[in-house]
Amino acid sequence: MTGRMQRIGILTGGGDCPGLNAVIRAVVRTLGGGSCEVVGIRNGFGGLISQEYVTLDQAAVSGILPRGGTILGSSNRDDPFDFEGTVGDSALNGDVSALVLENTRRAGLDGVVVIGGDGTQFIAHRLSERAYQEGGAFRVVGVPKTIDNDLQATDRTFGFDTAVGICSEAIDRLHTTAESHHRVMWVEVMGRHAGWIALHSGLAAGGDVILIPEIPFRVASVAGAIEDRRRRGKGFSIVVVAEGAIPEGGDPVYLLATDGTRRKSLGGIARIVAEEVERLTGLESRTTILGHVQRGGTPSAFDRVLATRFGVCAAQQVLAGSWNTMAALRGPSVVPVPLVSAVGSQRLVDPLGELVGVARATGVRFGDELGPTD
Amino acid sequence: MTGRMQRIGILTGGGDCPGLNAVIRAVVRTLGGGSCEVVGIRNGFGGLISQEYVTLDQAAVSGILPRGGTILGSSNRDDPFDFEGTVGDSALNGDVSALVLENTRRAGLDGVVVIGGDGTQFIAHRLSERAYQEGGAFRVVGVPKTIDNDLQATDRTFGFDTAVGICSEAIDRLHTTAESHHRVMWVEVMGRHAGWIALHSGLAAGGDVILIPEIPFRVASVAGAIEDRRRRGKGFSIVVVAEGAIPEGGDPVYLLATDGTRRKSLGGIARIVAEEVERLTGLESRTTILGHVQRGGTPSAFDRVLATRFGVCAAQQVLAGSWNTMAALRGPSVVPVPLVSAVGSQRLVDPLGELVGVARATGVRFGDELGPTD
Amino acid sequence: MTGRMQRIGILTGGGDCPGLNAVIRAVVRTLGGGSCEVVGIRNGFGGLISQEYVTLDQAAVSGILPRGGTILGSSNRDDPFDFEGTVGDSALNGDVSALVLENTRRAGLDGVVVIGGDGTQFIAHRLSERAYQEGGAFRVVGVPKTIDNDLQATDRTFGFDTAVGICSEAIDRLHTTAESHHRVMWVEVMGRHAGWIALHSGLAAGGDVILIPEIPFRVASVAGAIEDRRRRGKGFSIVVVAEGAIPEGGDPVYLLATDGTRRKSLGGIARIVAEEVERLTGLESRTTILGHVQRGGTPSAFDRVLATRFGVCAAQQVLAGSWNTMAALRGPSVVPVPLVSAVGSQRLVDPLGELVGVARATGVRFGDELGPTD
Amino acid sequence: MTGRMQRIGILTGGGDCPGLNAVIRAVVRTLGGGSCEVVGIRNGFGGLISQEYVTLDQAAVSGILPRGGTILGSSNRDDPFDFEGTVGDSALNGDVSALVLENTRRAGLDGVVVIGGDGTQFIAHRLSERAYQEGGAFRVVGVPKTIDNDLQATDRTFGFDTAVGICSEAIDRLHTTAESHHRVMWVEVMGRHAGWIALHSGLAAGGDVILIPEIPFRVASVAGAIEDRRRRGKGFSIVVVAEGAIPEGGDPVYLLATDGTRRKSLGGIARIVAEEVERLTGLESRTTILGHVQRGGTPSAFDRVLATRFGVCAAQQVLAGSWNTMAALRGPSVVPVPLVSAVGSQRLVDPLGELVGVARATGVRFGDELGPTD
Repeated sequence: MTGRMQRIGILTGGGDCPGLNAVIRAVVRTLGGGSCEVVGIRNGFGGLISQEYVTLDQAAVSGILPRGGTILGSSNRDDPFDFEGTVGDSALNGDVSALVLENTRRAGLDGVVVIGGDGTQFIAHRLSERAYQEGGAFRVVGVPKTIDNDLQATDRTFGFDTAVGICSEAIDRLHTTAESHHRVMWVEVMGRHAGWIALHSGLAAGGDVILIPEIPFRVASVAGAIEDRRRRGKGFSIVVVAEGAIPEGGDPVYLLATDGTRRKSLGGIARIVAEEVERLTGLESRTTILGHVQRGGTPSAFDRVLATRFGVCAAQQVLAGSWNTMAALRGPSVVPVPLVSAVGSQRLVDPLGELVGVARATGVRFGDELGPTD
Repeated sequence: MTGRMQRIGILTGGGDCPGLNAVIRAVVRTLGGGSCEVVGIRNGFGGLISQEYVTLDQAAVSGILPRGGTILGSSNRDDPFDFEGTVGDSALNGDVSALVLENTRRAGLDGVVVIGGDGTQFIAHRLSERAYQEGGAFRVVGVPKTIDNDLQATDRTFGFDTAVGICSEAIDRLHTTAESHHRVMWVEVMGRHAGWIALHSGLAAGGDVILIPEIPFRVASVAGAIEDRRRRGKGFSIVVVAEGAIPEGGDPVYLLATDGTRRKSLGGIARIVAEEVERLTGLESRTTILGHVQRGGTPSAFDRVLATRFGVCAAQQVLAGSWNTMAALRGPSVVPVPLVSAVGSQRLVDPLGELVGVARATGVRFGDELGPTD
Repeated sequence: MTGRMQRIGILTGGGDCPGLNAVIRAVVRTLGGGSCEVVGIRNGFGGLISQEYVTLDQAAVSGILPRGGTILGSSNRDDPFDFEGTVGDSALNGDVSALVLENTRRAGLDGVVVIGGDGTQFIAHRLSERAYQEGGAFRVVGVPKTIDNDLQATDRTFGFDTAVGICSEAIDRLHTTAESHHRVMWVEVMGRHAGWIALHSGLAAGGDVILIPEIPFRVASVAGAIEDRRRRGKGFSIVVVAEGAIPEGGDPVYLLATDGTRRKSLGGIARIVAEEVERLTGLESRTTILGHVQRGGTPSAFDRVLATRFGVCAAQQVLAGSWNTMAALRGPSVVPVPLVSAVGSQRLVDPLGELVGVARATGVRFGDELGPTD
Repeated sequence: MTGRMQRIGILTGGGDCPGLNAVIRAVVRTLGGGSCEVVGIRNGFGGLISQEYVTLDQAAVSGILPRGGTILGSSNRDDPFDFEGTVGDSALNGDVSALVLENTRRAGLDGVVVIGGDGTQFIAHRLSERAYQEGGAFRVVGVPKTIDNDLQATDRTFGFDTAVGICSEAIDRLHTTAESHHRVMWVEVMGRHAGWIALHSGLAAGGDVILIPEIPFRVASVAGAIEDRRRRGKGFSIVVVAEGAIPEGGDPVYLLATDGTRRKSLGGIARIVAEEVERLTGLESRTTILGHVQRGGTPSAFDRVLATRFGVCAAQQVLAGSWNTMAALRGPSVVPVPLVSAVGSQRLVDPLGELVGVARATGVRFGDELGPTD
């Protein structure tokens, strides 16, 4: 560290995720001891385009630990390499990455802590590369963020535990009605590509059938599972559906109905499959779509601790000058890993892995089981 | 009371509602002291058709106070005056009320505690009248049940507080995302005819716009409210929609879209209106449909106390021989009211009442406000 | 209303209570429409002594609805008629009410919304009287506040529902351990003079014994209740104790132990009685003291709605010039009542009232029952 | 596996821990597919002394996943090597392990799944050794259980996440009051030897001072931390205290008060230290003792999943004949480890480890810091 006080930017990009404020607080608390000045960048990379900054001193992060959302704001439309928007009076269009690098320099930022998912980290990486090619520098330390917990680079991401908790609580509530009123309850949860939320919350709350993107399902098999239960005297079932669940040979958007028509999945695959299964089994069904309730609000204790550890680790990389790294949970420890290795490598549910095996051992069906007539 | 021990039946009818088990427990605990034997009737009036009973002693109700659902089961297809179903080997069809009265006599039931909504209580009333005309008796004490809190006869019904709590918590969670990510969050809650759940949870969790059946809305006015907020620097809004909310001049099922087409409200009016408003304002929206999560699971402390008071009151009417009464909350007291007066009289939100006034005073819009161009 | 914009102060006094921020928000939203300027007074009447004010515009109350505590701060040592403290460099002592009236005038306050309990409202009343005698005015509108729900003047106070919910949840958790591990679980809850929290949470969560100030208990009777349960095969019991519960002939602080000694209740009457009963029954006991957990944190939906209604009502009295009134819940409506009538009249649990009767009907013991040997 | 159906016992020993029922359910569901009969043993090893068994078929474990406690009951006074109790009419005393082995044989148990902590697993191990010496067999598969998460053998134990969640929620609630009312809030949490619960919940909820057994504290240092905060304008502090926290040079039970007296820690070290610190700082304090609320009630989603994985793993060891093993979480996987290696090796908080470092980086004090005058 030099005698000059460093100026470090921090931004949050992409969708909401409980724990973002805990990361921000940990970074500010760790860096703010005297050697650094922390500058909050508003609304993801958008704030580096429009030059919207906010000073983050200790007072600014007081009381934010239990709060959902991000005090910095976020944006999904802030890719500097493919931008379309207005800044001040000017309409900007296309690649504005040069402007971002220029603004970063102008703001005197010695480095930026980037909290975000795959897309956000990839942008940071590209900015870093472009700056390098031009003889400058865009120094980054990353903090991974995905509600879906589907990054290869880290065993866990914050936000996931909160989402699973919310879904489990909802399924618990559906359970009592299902049982008393002999109904099939469907609940659609997040997970476009990875079924972790559905799998964990289904296991936690006793889902009878769990449909995830990694295990294509057949409607007849789902209906069979529900009828099997009825034959054993259970007139109700709980079906947990990841939003990205797909029928065998199908695709995530269209579903081949058993009557031969192709139907678009508007507002949820769960609703369509529920209808088909209701027709096949004659059992009444009800559908819940939790939506963004899963990614807002106060984080669980687990996520607050993990997010705080990520924030401290990122700040320590800044202090050590270990740029182009990202905080990651590996076994029991939070450690820095190379940022570039972290991008683009998704961790999906292994259909033959322990967790699916645990689910099957306890009687969960995934809709891929062969029936007596198959 | 005669020397003979009385036999009292108890049944739960209609949709799920947190607190049903608390009522059952209170009735059994109050009656079970020695003077009465309590017989649980399975699945609403259906159990009086199929003669499915279960003995309810103290052990049977142990530990059920915090549980959602009903240990007796319920049914929505059990109207003895318009029945269609199979009992044993026989298919039954049409009016089977004579069979119900016969089975009641055969089971030796001196009276029945009927926990249920309007429909269920009306059936009890008709059975009572038919028995009377035939020189017999179907003695009833009612306990009101509606998640919607829309009965004229009682200030509050159990289950409502739980539902409002669940919706408020969901809206709290949506709030943080809305604020950080500059989005319009829509949440559809229960309430086909009455907007109480939407109004209370919207007030409790700071909804910006609340749409209820009692105040028909205009899409342009809703969009206007959201744009007003944007102009005041609030890029986000929370819209709470009762499932029965209707557009001005519209009806609860069809909505006249602003492009002139009529669109059926499948899976929620919220989604349709959200889409229209998104088109008008250009602001991204996300929709949550809480569905049956609102009516299952453990009851709130408030609902457990109210349900217990209703159960004790009903049991006391049984002991006093005050048949054809129903437990009701009037001011601070739970008192018996005539059953017949309780049926068929709905309590709706008064558009000019205190609660709507409170909401408007704190800035809530209902979508009926005139805009600058009206 | 005159042409001049009114300046209205607002303060919160006494102990914490979930819903204070909801009241503040409702007052500011209702008054802030243009006709009034709202001035927050810091730390109760203390802020009128030290002249600490904060401007409350719409932005200041944004997002505070779900938050516990009070953004204005509070104080328990701020009685202007009996003050001891330091303001700036001067030590103040004794009656500083003249200073308070002077500061109120200096701050240009046309009236003050006082949110607080009995003590706080009484101070407001005395200030008002003193000002009147001196030919001036201290205009007040009150909002009642007590976690204990023990005011004669209003059917309910905000905060109480939250407290009962927290206690019920704790008792629910203790229940499963008690049952599995055959223990007697004691939980001490708030309520120095009134047993409402103990009674409601005990009813809600299935307490077996409830000890409240209004029904003095005998240790032998409590032990008897627990032994009765054991004889009926229930090796566990839950005892809910209001902190102000007193033994027959005893006083709230000292308890005559069965070994003849008098023991001071340090850190809870529950612990002392638990020890005595453990000695008498030989059954292991565990004690939980919830303490201030009961009065902090996010308010329940019920309390947020009630607090908002109180706030709007108070603001409307300000606008109408109806000073010396207080918002109160009467039956289904929030209405203004005279402030003076509201002070000093406590509502206690009626040992012969409906709620105690409901508890006894469902098997709850209050420790006043006569045993077989009495 | 032979043609004969195996008979497998299952018992739960020691204190309560959320997730016990999830383990039982997973074992029964996995084993119950046809090859095994599962026999529940009541009240830990006590049930093998008194021969109290219950058949565990699929119906017996239906609906128990979300429930706290254990459907089998537990006991803390059931050590067969040092027993004192009554069975039937006979008083038993001393070493009854021979009887336990005899009863196990008589009950036809081919093996026992033992869910319990260190003490319980050690008893199982000794029974196994004694049986071996006598030419017989007491076949065991263990499932670790400790709320404190302090086993060397497994990265996590179920119940811990729930406990941390409950403590964090309580601290969140205390936070708002502390802040509004300028108080020092003390909360005592579980952890006699290990400070994991205090450390995690303190980190999660923003505790300012955390006192744990692994880092002896000085009262003056704690007071100093609180005064430092006051000097920086924070008139409140949150102190999280593990029940086993000890003063420097002190012992867990006695605390040397600053006035020279030695005071016994009755009902909590927190209360004593709070009093001392109040005297030193003049700041009002309030103490909460959460007690058994931490170890009862519904498990968190995380704990339900972990407990289910443990149960399935244990059942698979039974099916594989891998006796004397225990399920353990190692990195991302649940795997069997040797039972004997698992016993007696405690995992404590490392005062120089990552987590304490994270806490210090974010400003947490542990009471071991040297003050300006040290």
